[in-house]
Amino acid sequence: MQQCSCGHRAIYFRRYSGQHLCKRCFSRSIFKKFKDTIRINKLIERDDHVVCGVSGGKDSLVLLHMLKDLQSKFQFELSALVIDEGIAGYRDVSLPYVHRACKQLGVPLHTRSFKEAYGYTLDEVTQIEDRLGACSYCGVFRRNILNQASREIGGTKLALGHNLDDESQVILMNMLRGDMGRFGRTGTFYKDVHPKFIPRIKPLREIPEKELVLYAVISGIEFDFEECPYAHEAFRDDVRDFLNDMEQKRPGTKHTLLKTYDKLFPIFNEQFTPESIATCKRCGEPSISTLCKKCEMIDDIKKKKGY
Amino acid sequence: MQQCSCGHRAIYFRRYSGQHLCKRCFSRSIFKKFKDTIRINKLIERDDHVVCGVSGGKDSLVLLHMLKDLQSKFQFELSALVIDEGIAGYRDVSLPYVHRACKQLGVPLHTRSFKEAYGYTLDEVTQIEDRLGACSYCGVFRRNILNQASREIGGTKLALGHNLDDESQVILMNMLRGDMGRFGRTGTFYKDVHPKFIPRIKPLREIPEKELVLYAVISGIEFDFEECPYAHEAFRDDVRDFLNDMEQKRPGTKHTLLKTYDKLFPIFNEQFTPESIATCKRCGEPSISTLCKKCEMIDDIKKKKGY
Repeated sequence: MQQCSCGHRAIYFRRYSGQHLCKRCFSRSIFKKFKDTIRINKLIERDDHVVCGVSGGKDSLVLLHMLKDLQSKFQFELSALVIDEGIAGYRDVSLPYVHRACKQLGVPLHTRSFKEAYGYTLDEVTQIEDRLGACSYCGVFRRNILNQASREIGGTKLALGHNLDDESQVILMNMLRGDMGRFGRTGTFYKDVHPKFIPRIKPLREIPEKELVLYAVISGIEFDFEECPYAHEAFRDDVRDFLNDMEQKRPGTKHTLLKTYDKLFPIFNEQFTPESIATCKRCGEPSISTLCKKCEMIDDIKKKKGY
Repeated sequence: MQQCSCGHRAIYFRRYSGQHLCKRCFSRSIFKKFKDTIRINKLIERDDHVVCGVSGGKDSLVLLHMLKDLQSKFQFELSALVIDEGIAGYRDVSLPYVHRACKQLGVPLHTRSFKEAYGYTLDEVTQIEDRLGACSYCGVFRRNILNQASREIGGTKLALGHNLDDESQVILMNMLRGDMGRFGRTGTFYKDVHPKFIPRIKPLREIPEKELVLYAVISGIEFDFEECPYAHEAFRDDVRDFLNDMEQKRPGTKHTLLKTYDKLFPIFNEQFTPESIATCKRCGEPSISTLCKKCEMIDDIKKKKGY
């Protein structure tokens, strides 16, 4: 039987640090990593209004619980925001988890939907126009609503549950497809580039996915285990498999990739100056060009529909 | 039967550009890529003395032939340099290919050996001290002799045969192991950071390995097919397999990775200023610290040997 350094029975071996950890020390280490990420990067400041994007999955519900715990340490406001993309058999299953968690924690919940905002559910969009794949439409639409709704709620920060696996996959994917533009938009924190832009924070980005699952289970956080039916993007699957294999062979690889990126980030981020961010002429949201990606996609869908 | 755009029978399909190419158009395209890389990056200037590092393998012998061809276009001096690491059953097989090529092309050949320079062959080194793996010792020793010998020969540029596969593998490996220092040393060209440093150029870095094999065969360039017996580094093998798989699924991935790196390169390279490069207190060669890596390794080996 392996022991934790505190003397209790270890339930987890953290390969990248060589530590055997008991339940309590494991959970403490995760919460500490979350707190340190916020403190070191100054992600939340006193009197911020943090809007936590929640989906019902483990990452976002762990994040919501941790943010609630953090409120006992210092003063900030907390709300939750869920987006109903309109994915039959999936989102309707995860929504009750979100409602229960918010009720239990006493966090006000705000709901938005693709249908309401754009006139189409994601299922409808993919039936009309699937040239780019569901994830492309969903990503653009979701980011758009997250930003707009956070602002309407009065949020000053938008907190997202991206974990180490998500982050390292995106970094490698952007590197392999040469997407330098997106590269600059992956980091922890955005500087203040547009009056309508709510800075995004990712307090879980240094925590591996499997540790978040374990943390949720240990903490008794109920979450939806289902994966989005659209989630299998071949490219991401290949990158995920490769990184998991490398992590297995050389523990710490994902953390290293994130650190490499973080050292480069100030350079990427340089390109996003208030001058480089435009305002969409149609919807008024922050945009890279004169018409934002979301409005462009909506146009395409309407054209395809024939009106 | 697929046709080349010139009307002749195609012998090769270049997936990343969608072109079917005949023998002649293929060879021309490779030579053009080589010439363009030199021209665009100003790798060779009139009256340079280019020392071509040769091993007897396809990459370096193709490079030597191409450099010889290029001499008919403009004025520069060309020499070849081969290093005998002392790898029984391997280097002794490839050396005759080097001698024949240099004789055939009329290029003066210079030879150096690990034994002569350091007192040990690579085979002997690995028997005394193999803590870091043969490739680590070989890499450091080889770079050291290449630079020193090029200078002694009167070279102003050191040309190396690294191809697209080598380059993209190293970029991803450095990214995954967080080796930011080496990152800055992978690019096409070094700026003038130390009076004893001969700038390295890599005119084949945009050409895939398999296209160099085909070019060599079409051009009748004889080369040693053998791989170095020490060459199987598990990490590189994994990275190579992944990149080959990605290239297969998304042709152009290796080129894209190289381009992403090249956009970042000026930033990495910033750190190598004349102030940041020291001089080894023992051998006087350029070094990152006061004692260069090669002298450090030699010390370790001598200590292990007991004198």
